[in-house]
Amino acid sequence: MSSYTSMNAAELQEELSSLMQLYKDYQEMKLSLNMSRGRPAKEQMELAQGMLSCLGPEDMTLVNGTDVRNYGVLEGIPEARKLMGDLMGLRPEEVIVCGSSSLNIMYDLVSHAYTHGVYGGANPWCKTDHPKFLCPVPGYDRHFAITEYFGIDMIQIPMKADGPDMDLIESYVSSDPSVKGIWCVPKYSNPQGITYSDEVVRRMARLKPAADDFRIFWDNAYAVHDLYEDDQDHLLNIMDECKKAGTENQVYEFFSTSKISFAGGGMAALGASEANIRHLSQQFSVQTIGWNKLNMLFHVKFFGDRQGVLDHMKKHAALLRPKFAAVLDILKQEVADIASWNVPKGGYFISFDTMEGCAKRVVALCKEAGVVLTGAGATYPYGKDPHDSNIRIAPTSVSVEELRLATTLLCLCVKIATVEKLLQA
Amino acid sequence: MSSYTSMNAAELQEELSSLMQLYKDYQEMKLSLNMSRGRPAKEQMELAQGMLSCLGPEDMTLVNGTDVRNYGVLEGIPEARKLMGDLMGLRPEEVIVCGSSSLNIMYDLVSHAYTHGVYGGANPWCKTDHPKFLCPVPGYDRHFAITEYFGIDMIQIPMKADGPDMDLIESYVSSDPSVKGIWCVPKYSNPQGITYSDEVVRRMARLKPAADDFRIFWDNAYAVHDLYEDDQDHLLNIMDECKKAGTENQVYEFFSTSKISFAGGGMAALGASEANIRHLSQQFSVQTIGWNKLNMLFHVKFFGDRQGVLDHMKKHAALLRPKFAAVLDILKQEVADIASWNVPKGGYFISFDTMEGCAKRVVALCKEAGVVLTGAGATYPYGKDPHDSNIRIAPTSVSVEELRLATTLLCLCVKIATVEKLLQA
Repeated sequence: MSSYTSMNAAELQEELSSLMQLYKDYQEMKLSLNMSRGRPAKEQMELAQGMLSCLGPEDMTLVNGTDVRNYGVLEGIPEARKLMGDLMGLRPEEVIVCGSSSLNIMYDLVSHAYTHGVYGGANPWCKTDHPKFLCPVPGYDRHFAITEYFGIDMIQIPMKADGPDMDLIESYVSSDPSVKGIWCVPKYSNPQGITYSDEVVRRMARLKPAADDFRIFWDNAYAVHDLYEDDQDHLLNIMDECKKAGTENQVYEFFSTSKISFAGGGMAALGASEANIRHLSQQFSVQTIGWNKLNMLFHVKFFGDRQGVLDHMKKHAALLRPKFAAVLDILKQEVADIASWNVPKGGYFISFDTMEGCAKRVVALCKEAGVVLTGAGATYPYGKDPHDSNIRIAPTSVSVEELRLATTLLCLCVKIATVEKLLQA
Repeated sequence: MSSYTSMNAAELQEELSSLMQLYKDYQEMKLSLNMSRGRPAKEQMELAQGMLSCLGPEDMTLVNGTDVRNYGVLEGIPEARKLMGDLMGLRPEEVIVCGSSSLNIMYDLVSHAYTHGVYGGANPWCKTDHPKFLCPVPGYDRHFAITEYFGIDMIQIPMKADGPDMDLIESYVSSDPSVKGIWCVPKYSNPQGITYSDEVVRRMARLKPAADDFRIFWDNAYAVHDLYEDDQDHLLNIMDECKKAGTENQVYEFFSTSKISFAGGGMAALGASEANIRHLSQQFSVQTIGWNKLNMLFHVKFFGDRQGVLDHMKKHAALLRPKFAAVLDILKQEVADIASWNVPKGGYFISFDTMEGCAKRVVALCKEAGVVLTGAGATYPYGKDPHDSNIRIAPTSVSVEELRLATTLLCLCVKIATVEKLLQA
């Protein structure tokens, strides 16, 4: 930032004029690019195309005699519970395989807990005045939308380099019985790409809640979404740690293949202690006879086992590495002195921070030039970033060429917003 | 019943002894048959086997440019909204295509209404002391389970030959603002196979609720499930009638292909006014990014259009007719004088009524001889049949041979229970 901060007003004004001239050139290009959501690219989804023709009439009857085409088997077919369990580090009995959306499972669990309570809880969450959730920030907007929908107060917990601030979390959880849960994306977090350290996972597993109905919502959305074969983050198995601490009923885990097979037709699963699974199966049995078992069988047949999924994800990584590299290279060249960002080893995002008070302006400028970013503030509860500085960059769905263009524009917009801000100061 | 009612105690006792001897013979056969749930038979599901290999890479992009493999399109792909709309007698804009289970949609709508209210309602249902639902009886146990789960009081409404008692319904709905909804299976009702008359549909559409948040849950589960090509019931289009009466926001319609394609992987849809659809889309957007679009495309590609579905259902009917006939023939031969039942033109059930106070005993006797029937009472809210007489027979999933055996045993058990009852009198 040295160059801009050392400029006087006249110099900044001149710089702004020349930046705006460049910006006009971009506007004339009539771009239409979207870096707002973590969507896989067409080429990634094509990797799983074979799934859609892998089932024959001979596959319809499972080893246990179940016809997958008929009703029943609420917890999911055994083959799918095994596969998802292996991916989650859980036994099949600790897994329920549901529909295509893990977000929907999270919603269902919050909804059931709100109206009917959780296993071991004396009351439904709605009976607590101002129930609360802890929200590591920046975080995932769709998590926050669920708790906001139920009027659950959201308390921001700052993320540190190795996960959320555990001192703060322990303090809230152990002292306030109205704290009912916490949203976590523990590996390659959305948006920062941070993986919780072993120490953070252990402290999370050893939380001693004041509430009798507290749950960790452990959304392991990027569990196998590594970018590099030789440089991967490793997340400790929270269920193992919970079992050591005798807290295994305190955690709900989530996993899906939305960014492994198809975002428009993946397979989602819930992981939990057997006591929780029994309790949740009872609650689920009111809402459905069973989720799509054919979709489960498509996945099991195509991937085979955990190793099959891991091998598949190497192909995804090969497609994604150049995209992350393209964005990171340009950011480094263009805005290293006026912004900061993470360099993730996996996941779907680059978390980018402008100078305080500039993020909204940057997103607006990009939009006016045809590049859609996630709304500024979206990574915070209620969409309000107190510093107005965080922008989530989602580089996966755009081509490398387009990414270069979009990122160069983004950098230009960051420069404009920064100069404008300095002129106001 | 003349023969049994004219017997004295000694004669009844003698009859019972000889019936029990026959019963023992059945027990020795070690039967294991299940007529408890409305499940399609293997042969029915095989009719749709081609669906699972009908999609190629060239099908992945829709006419409007959407890649079905990716995220988005919350209301369902346009092609599926059109198909389901045509089957439901609705425009595509009046349809949301969801996952595989229409029951899950019904659950979701009750749950959202309970915690957040419906379009046009001033408050969520949970703010009403003792919210109530009207339940035509006998009815579908899984409907009743949903309202029971939310502590919604269930008021029984007797079914008549042409649908539920509309005088009673009008009286409750117009006078009591705590009445929030009614469960309806308007065509080939579960379990009686009754289709609501035009007059009943019109009166339903013209209900003037005291509540500002009343909804008709119109579960048209058997809309195209006719047994005969030349003798079908016709259900009036309730949305058309509602539009005439200006009540189009009062009805939610449900449809699924669970008993058309696959019970383990069908396609379910919700139909409602455009105002309701907009409101519900907002609520749904909190719970999911979108339902399984590949499953929608499988269905659209395989069936093509409404006529494709109707042609497919003729093949189902050919498989089901002999099953219904087998059961009805034996009932007529064996228990015409001591029981009553309906003769449906479609749907999945035969509703069977024993002499008052005998149903539980019949179901228990059948079970002890290896034939599982739906639990007696299941067709009533809270599982309590005030007359202990209704039994739901589900003949679809068993072979004709097995059905003959099971029905003959059922008739024997009905005779035993009837004689026992008369001996107690």
